[in-house]
Amino acid sequence: MAGVDRSRRKLLQTAAAGGLGAGLATSFGAVAPARAEGVEGTRAREGAEGGAEGSVRVAVLLYDGFTALDAVGPYEVLCRVPGVTVTMVAERAGRVRTDTGELGLVAERSLDSVARADVLLVPGGVERGTTATMANTVVLDWIRRIHRGSTWTTSVCTGSLILGAAGLLRGVPATTYWASRPYLADAGAIYTPGRFVEAGKILTGAGVSAGIDMGLHLAARLSDERTAQAMQLAVEYDPDPPFDTGSPEKAGPELQQLALKLIADAVR
Amino acid sequence: MAGVDRSRRKLLQTAAAGGLGAGLATSFGAVAPARAEGVEGTRAREGAEGGAEGSVRVAVLLYDGFTALDAVGPYEVLCRVPGVTVTMVAERAGRVRTDTGELGLVAERSLDSVARADVLLVPGGVERGTTATMANTVVLDWIRRIHRGSTWTTSVCTGSLILGAAGLLRGVPATTYWASRPYLADAGAIYTPGRFVEAGKILTGAGVSAGIDMGLHLAARLSDERTAQAMQLAVEYDPDPPFDTGSPEKAGPELQQLALKLIADAVR
Repeated sequence: MAGVDRSRRKLLQTAAAGGLGAGLATSFGAVAPARAEGVEGTRAREGAEGGAEGSVRVAVLLYDGFTALDAVGPYEVLCRVPGVTVTMVAERAGRVRTDTGELGLVAERSLDSVARADVLLVPGGVERGTTATMANTVVLDWIRRIHRGSTWTTSVCTGSLILGAAGLLRGVPATTYWASRPYLADAGAIYTPGRFVEAGKILTGAGVSAGIDMGLHLAARLSDERTAQAMQLAVEYDPDPPFDTGSPEKAGPELQQLALKLIADAVR
Repeated sequence: MAGVDRSRRKLLQTAAAGGLGAGLATSFGAVAPARAEGVEGTRAREGAEGGAEGSVRVAVLLYDGFTALDAVGPYEVLCRVPGVTVTMVAERAGRVRTDTGELGLVAERSLDSVARADVLLVPGGVERGTTATMANTVVLDWIRRIHRGSTWTTSVCTGSLILGAAGLLRGVPATTYWASRPYLADAGAIYTPGRFVEAGKILTGAGVSAGIDMGLHLAARLSDERTAQAMQLAVEYDPDPPFDTGSPEKAGPELQQLALKLIADAVR
């Protein structure tokens, strides 16, 4: 227990030593200049096990109507993995609103300033966001271009339908949001149950919060299991929901209908 | 199974009917004018069970160095509860950067434009953000003012240390981030284990991802259990992490040290 107490004290002590000054070196005040190359350089940080040389660049695609937790869940478990930098990217840099319209996240880079990334992550969204993105040829071309050079191409929730619209899921085992499972077939994908499904370099997650589970798996792939396990503790991910209705099978048809009604009402 | 298929189809159909046009009515283009009253009115939405009359206003405090998932987890499970509106509030409206500096969220309102809210939620952050906020008298005065009129005053992670600095936790059972438990005593709070701890109108969550569990509990308090259960399904929160190291007890001392090192390194 003494060891536990020491480690607790260390959190505030070690963070205090290097925190404030260095943190200020990162500027959100201006959009980064559009260098049409990788997404490195948005933040000067040396990973614990190496410098910028060994950095892994994760690009998260934001679009009008995306679901915040789809993007923020994986971000939170990946952003502290040594050598990993996570950058939010959108058609235009700046604020991008989420599906309910109540929240905005900032995209640091525009699509045309990012020509490659090691990891692509496409979050899901409600109808408005997902279908508009599935029909946006600029975004789909960018996804295909990034995918050609990626180590991992990933999605959360209905983000897999966007990967499908880009033609990346033909014959590929994949998952998606529970209510959208039938639509995977439209893209030629093979619906496969699971919190996340890995098929070659394509990794798809189930709905919204599944991005946290998928993110931990990806953290292990990008580093090692020990680091991923430390990240699970870092975000204190020891889930204990007060109910047990998180899957359509557990929730049953009535709660399914209510969930879909609440989602539809909230985009009005 | 036919019922399940119909509900899946309904997701995209019902959302399509009301989505795009109505969504555009919400403007993120300009900061809302500073009306020094409640946080209602940032979004014109009728709850499924009532209009603006019965609306519950949730104000989430953002500050430089907060942890994104602390705020976004509860947001995601509360924002679709009928009658609930969630508004991000910061000392100044506009983009607020998170603890790693890699991500920015947009605060729609400034503190001085929000004089009351039904629910206050204070997320945690790393050392830099938490301690600066604990010493910010403008923010602490605002927290105390909102608390006087709130139905619920809540925190996630080290956000409880900020509530403590505002003097709200004297003699109150509460929880916080695993590594910060000893610091609750400095505020006169009584550390109590749990994913979240309810004590009167004060509700505190454990670290980062615990905000999702706490948010579901709060959703039930603000509406009813059935609605909260539907929200759990809406975000497909059926957690299945690939590891089981989400608490300090499960992780053990070595992973605790590694987690704290990764956190400290990521704020550099």
